[in-house]
Amino acid sequence: MSIFYCFTARIKNFMLGFTSATAAPLSYSRHKQQRSRWLSQLTQLIAFPTISAQPKHYRDIRACAQWLARHLAELGLHHVQILPGIRGSLPSVYGDWLSAPGKPTLLLYGHYDVQPVDPLPAWQTPPFQATIIGDNLYARGASDDKGQFFIHLKAIESYLRTTGKLPLNIKVWLEGEEEIGSPNLATVLKREMARFKADAVLVSDTEMLERDRPSIIYGLRGNLSCELAVTGPQHDLHSGRYGGAVLNPLQALSDIISGLHDRKGRVAIPGFYQQVKQLPPTERQTIRCCCKRDQQILDDLDLSTGWGEPGYSLYERMTIRPALTINGITGGYTGAGSKSVIPNRGLARFSIRLVPDQDPAQIAQLIQHHIQTLTHPAVRSHLKITSGARPVLLPKDHPVMTAAVKAVKQTWGVAPVFTRSGGTIPLVEQLYRQLGVAIVLLGFGLPDDNVHAPNEKFSLANFFRGIETVIQFLAEYGK
Amino acid sequence: MSIFYCFTARIKNFMLGFTSATAAPLSYSRHKQQRSRWLSQLTQLIAFPTISAQPKHYRDIRACAQWLARHLAELGLHHVQILPGIRGSLPSVYGDWLSAPGKPTLLLYGHYDVQPVDPLPAWQTPPFQATIIGDNLYARGASDDKGQFFIHLKAIESYLRTTGKLPLNIKVWLEGEEEIGSPNLATVLKREMARFKADAVLVSDTEMLERDRPSIIYGLRGNLSCELAVTGPQHDLHSGRYGGAVLNPLQALSDIISGLHDRKGRVAIPGFYQQVKQLPPTERQTIRCCCKRDQQILDDLDLSTGWGEPGYSLYERMTIRPALTINGITGGYTGAGSKSVIPNRGLARFSIRLVPDQDPAQIAQLIQHHIQTLTHPAVRSHLKITSGARPVLLPKDHPVMTAAVKAVKQTWGVAPVFTRSGGTIPLVEQLYRQLGVAIVLLGFGLPDDNVHAPNEKFSLANFFRGIETVIQFLAEYGK
Repeated sequence: MSIFYCFTARIKNFMLGFTSATAAPLSYSRHKQQRSRWLSQLTQLIAFPTISAQPKHYRDIRACAQWLARHLAELGLHHVQILPGIRGSLPSVYGDWLSAPGKPTLLLYGHYDVQPVDPLPAWQTPPFQATIIGDNLYARGASDDKGQFFIHLKAIESYLRTTGKLPLNIKVWLEGEEEIGSPNLATVLKREMARFKADAVLVSDTEMLERDRPSIIYGLRGNLSCELAVTGPQHDLHSGRYGGAVLNPLQALSDIISGLHDRKGRVAIPGFYQQVKQLPPTERQTIRCCCKRDQQILDDLDLSTGWGEPGYSLYERMTIRPALTINGITGGYTGAGSKSVIPNRGLARFSIRLVPDQDPAQIAQLIQHHIQTLTHPAVRSHLKITSGARPVLLPKDHPVMTAAVKAVKQTWGVAPVFTRSGGTIPLVEQLYRQLGVAIVLLGFGLPDDNVHAPNEKFSLANFFRGIETVIQFLAEYGK
Repeated sequence: MSIFYCFTARIKNFMLGFTSATAAPLSYSRHKQQRSRWLSQLTQLIAFPTISAQPKHYRDIRACAQWLARHLAELGLHHVQILPGIRGSLPSVYGDWLSAPGKPTLLLYGHYDVQPVDPLPAWQTPPFQATIIGDNLYARGASDDKGQFFIHLKAIESYLRTTGKLPLNIKVWLEGEEEIGSPNLATVLKREMARFKADAVLVSDTEMLERDRPSIIYGLRGNLSCELAVTGPQHDLHSGRYGGAVLNPLQALSDIISGLHDRKGRVAIPGFYQQVKQLPPTERQTIRCCCKRDQQILDDLDLSTGWGEPGYSLYERMTIRPALTINGITGGYTGAGSKSVIPNRGLARFSIRLVPDQDPAQIAQLIQHHIQTLTHPAVRSHLKITSGARPVLLPKDHPVMTAAVKAVKQTWGVAPVFTRSGGTIPLVEQLYRQLGVAIVLLGFGLPDDNVHAPNEKFSLANFFRGIETVIQFLAEYGK
């Protein structure tokens, strides 16, 4: 961050949003000493390689949960505890502050697990060593989601250290299985129903439209994670001796994958679009006016051309339309040199992003059937659904939304844009459906944060302004 | 091997093929003491993990070459030396015995490098620890080709230890790069033209039709090894956020692979079959009468159904017709758990087996062009040809063939069937084309030897009878 930037930012900050309720916490959060200490704490948090997909990192996840529990207690939260997982699954961390009688209760949700770091050689800095370059902090989890939920914790700290109290009741819940699709969420929610009871939920696990264009997400796509195995001969065969007479499982797998879309980019599973709700023209109009144009998206991604379902903009394809994406494929030998085999097995992972009103169970049946029809009788295919989450649309007119809009205006000088995201946060849909609670998805990531990819980063300017936004939000919602 | 089997085999052996010229060497080769010593030597040879595809094993390959050079010298061969590779490529081993003036000179070729062992978990015994179970010796290289060229060496030993001489002049050449397509063979052959000069060549690197049905291969398919990379975005993208708007390189790769064949199993590359020579009806008649039927092949492979080019039997598809086989495919994340990405790259390896008169360079151009037309404009594809070898048909009427037929009759009690193989031995085509020399492909492998696959094995009965066959062959050709 340049000195000039710091100076102008500070002037601007001092001119915006100082009310009597937030003056002390905001001033505390802007102090150079706090900011430097917080970065060092975030560096410690990031150093835990909490990759929930990989059992070898379960120990790191448990160690990180310990660190977080200590941290919540140090902040001054009460009832801090590590909530055990279901049958050996990964723990979450809980803490609360419930000393504001008559005020609403806000659940702050985040997740401290992260995506795998493969391909490691593509990282320019060590993924679990927070590295600041310019305005950005580079690390796995910097934006998704350690850096973002840490914003909540630092807003709480700013209040408690300066005023000794919070303007409302707070519950903090940090999950450790979000990046594997929260497979135990329903069971945990059922068990902890009373503990998590709240009037509203704040989640910062999404991105803004662009720098200086904050947004609140009111719709998330659902997800079906699938694993498809195709097996042929009992074992690998010499490709010279048998090539031409035995169907190659990798070829059969490619045929199936190829048959999942039509030539134009539509998903080719019969019935796939049947339940998809058409958006009212006014909503599509809003998307056209306020959301990214195709060229902007292509520029962001450094791509020359887009792809996908005809009749929809790239933004629409990413948010309001469903999608099927191959996440990984493997089979045979691709190591050094070559190996002349007909491999006996191929495997692909793919995920289907669902939109209202697609039902994961029904889509699972449709794809199961479609894959059977695409499977050549000379091989066997097996489809496994590894996780599922429904799509969700949140109401925009709840008081907690109003508070969030106000807080954003005070901090950023502009109103947030209401948008939909293509991503999935299983918790959101389940909380909304099971508890009927209002949820605010107010994220501070940027579109070029490289989440789930090498060189993930988080903007420090957004980190610090995010803390100010949450301070304002707590004050507004607590009014 | 059961005691009963040993006994009956020995009786049979003693009754077959004892002429004055071969009596001593055959008797030596049948002695229990030799046999047990030879198995222990073969175990040492197999213990070198000589995987030429993997640079980490180059040291093992050089150590194995040293071991072989010592072994050739101990046998009594002259001019033993390790022939250096071309520009750091892998060495071969040479030795000769040229003290039979007026007699023909026979080049004995074999290769001491082996295929990779992946997938390792599928092995039931350690791949580089020779393990005898029943009649079979299990190990990588047992059949392809350490066990088979060791037959030649032990036939030589049987002669030299008993009669002090050989019935003809011998040159032994053991290559270290066969399993990676002998990329430096042309250069080595040019450099060593004088050294390798011979009247005929014997290669044991193929298989018999079945147990008790020896065969001589007179045709080999050629090979083009290819690597296809498809790249999309600059780096992996979050599949939730961007899924549906960005063409997935793994999907594009699957579309290309799927487009390499038509629905019926023919290669779909335009012009691919244009140069393929149609077999005369008499030759197809011979195949129908003498070679394996579809059901036998399916039974061997434990498969319920075959696949491939309509109008041809499975055996024909494996030998006289060309084939395109995917050897490996990789991209994205397929480790533990899941990773929600649109990967930025996918890669496939495939090999094309060529038949007369397909020209590798011309086929390379056709496939290059076809892949360009199959590549969606939203991604880039890059095809690399990693090695190439022409198909070959050998004349069946040379005196060395007559000698081989006689030797097989004497040892096995039946004449060998002349067949074609679907595999490729780059040396054969190059020697035949460059030196115009007669080549006998007399192999002792069995169709269920699992060559190139886990649990490779070699029949000990075939190993010992192979030695007897080569002793007879040397005598016959030396007459």
